[in-house]
Amino acid sequence: MAEKKLGLQTVKLKNPPSIISTSSIVGPKESEGPLREYFDIKLEDDLFGEKSWEKAESKMVREAVRNAIEKAKLKPQDIDYYFGGDLLNQIISSSFAARELQIPFFGLYGACSTMTESLSLGAMNIDGGYSDYVVAATSSHFCSAERQFRFPLEHGNQRPPTSQWTVTGSGAAVLAKKGNGPYITYVTTGRVMDFGIKDANNMGAAMAPAAADTILRHFKDTGFDAKDYDLIITGDLGKVGRDLTVDLVFKNGYDISSNFTDCGVEIFDLENQDVHAGGSGCGCSAVVFCGYLYNQLLNKNLKKVLLISTGALLSPTSTMQGESIPGIAHGVTIERMG
Amino acid sequence: MAEKKLGLQTVKLKNPPSIISTSSIVGPKESEGPLREYFDIKLEDDLFGEKSWEKAESKMVREAVRNAIEKAKLKPQDIDYYFGGDLLNQIISSSFAARELQIPFFGLYGACSTMTESLSLGAMNIDGGYSDYVVAATSSHFCSAERQFRFPLEHGNQRPPTSQWTVTGSGAAVLAKKGNGPYITYVTTGRVMDFGIKDANNMGAAMAPAAADTILRHFKDTGFDAKDYDLIITGDLGKVGRDLTVDLVFKNGYDISSNFTDCGVEIFDLENQDVHAGGSGCGCSAVVFCGYLYNQLLNKNLKKVLLISTGALLSPTSTMQGESIPGIAHGVTIERMG
Repeated sequence: MAEKKLGLQTVKLKNPPSIISTSSIVGPKESEGPLREYFDIKLEDDLFGEKSWEKAESKMVREAVRNAIEKAKLKPQDIDYYFGGDLLNQIISSSFAARELQIPFFGLYGACSTMTESLSLGAMNIDGGYSDYVVAATSSHFCSAERQFRFPLEHGNQRPPTSQWTVTGSGAAVLAKKGNGPYITYVTTGRVMDFGIKDANNMGAAMAPAAADTILRHFKDTGFDAKDYDLIITGDLGKVGRDLTVDLVFKNGYDISSNFTDCGVEIFDLENQDVHAGGSGCGCSAVVFCGYLYNQLLNKNLKKVLLISTGALLSPTSTMQGESIPGIAHGVTIERMG
Repeated sequence: MAEKKLGLQTVKLKNPPSIISTSSIVGPKESEGPLREYFDIKLEDDLFGEKSWEKAESKMVREAVRNAIEKAKLKPQDIDYYFGGDLLNQIISSSFAARELQIPFFGLYGACSTMTESLSLGAMNIDGGYSDYVVAATSSHFCSAERQFRFPLEHGNQRPPTSQWTVTGSGAAVLAKKGNGPYITYVTTGRVMDFGIKDANNMGAAMAPAAADTILRHFKDTGFDAKDYDLIITGDLGKVGRDLTVDLVFKNGYDISSNFTDCGVEIFDLENQDVHAGGSGCGCSAVVFCGYLYNQLLNKNLKKVLLISTGALLSPTSTMQGESIPGIAHGVTIERMG
């Protein structure tokens, strides 16, 4: 078996990369949510001075990446690779940001799992001896996502209780060969799982089987269980998917109920912010990690976290052609050491 | 500097992975082209027994990956990671193939640069000690791509002379820690380059600056030049982009004119197959590499090849919003040794 491989889907990094800085940008609604104090830049306007939501989203990515690099006291030319992607067709938010940044670019598409996909590949890239610094980043925007995946906002359609609110935000993290942590120590890569959900307004249920599969796989591969973590947190399952995941994991012999939550549940006040089942989008786990969780790790309020961003792999075309919505979830262990 | 890094954008692999098998599937038009004898599966019908072109494309990916794995005398569960992506919105061809294959999946979007993006990440993954076997795969389909990026075929619009013909095809390669080669020895990762081209029917010109940039960067980082290679071959620049690339590279001090060509020029008979400037699409460099080039490397007709798949980073939305079309190009050195 490969030197760093553990079990079926996990690797243990030999020289765990340090996350030396992060940056987060959020929209107006996220700026009013319970985690507001942890975000670096809070937009007063969804358009961010641009003429379209898509251009605004790309600007968020560019500024999040630039800001993270600055906070690390580096320049874009110091960064060896940029791993990034987003929800928009042909990942234009990330590609156009990469055009401005001029960092060698690996474009990714993992739907809302992209934050941990980029952290996984970035961490393996450094640990593999290919780079000193990489940046991992992703984004989503409520208005560009609704227009693309569901209905234009002008349509004013009703949203069912299972629907989630796409987070307007971008998060970026700079990973380095050396640093004081927190460190990425394990990477568990997901398979595409499909339980036959066809409702594009019930993403949490579509993604829960993938989240549960990756959590269970991580436990089996590493020998860890819930008590080895201060927190296990998924990307954007919302309330419905979070509860399903706890049940699915429990049915397979592990109880995560006491230290498990979901970024989509944490980012909004579900009662008062009218977001139905919670937040979603690549930006959801990106800003919750780059804002709140990173802060808690730095301040030692959290010592070991399993972050599992979760993606629903649909397109409007696949939905129109009667396909169900498969999901994927990638997990990374992020921990202080010592 | 990182252990395996060379210059600004290149890494030299320490234990070069071996490409132990490949597979290629092509559509009817490609089956009539000059490289027809090198493809494994030739479809008589663009729909491949499915109800939509999108489903047909996903089936091509699945079968190409399965076939490559079988030719390597392996099973899907022996493969540690699947690196793949395609042109369709939210890479549904690859995601739905990954659902069937159940291999841990890293979804990529590099537009038509995806074949070398997946080979780059796959090779670094093995050399980094994370896996014994990975599969790298991509696809495109003329009918699904025209519908998505330009006009539905039913519209019957005219195509200008600079336009290219998206290849219907999928290619997959199995990389292994051990094997008899050919080996992936160097990886040069591209930056996003933009020369302000706005014509979605002139992709060759949009991608040429990125191709030239990556070729020049590869030469500077490694100290190689054209004479160190039997063949330098880009992904899908077509006739227009190929000539521009030769000029751009020449203006920067290197003459590649004697051993340079483009997969999009080679796959079709440009005179007799009515494809205007040549072939394009992720599938273009995928099937030319997995079919023709791999065969030539095995038979020692070629000993050292620089393959540079080239991607145009546009979406219909970015075009409608007045954006120009940036390009990206990723290079890998593939060679016999001894």
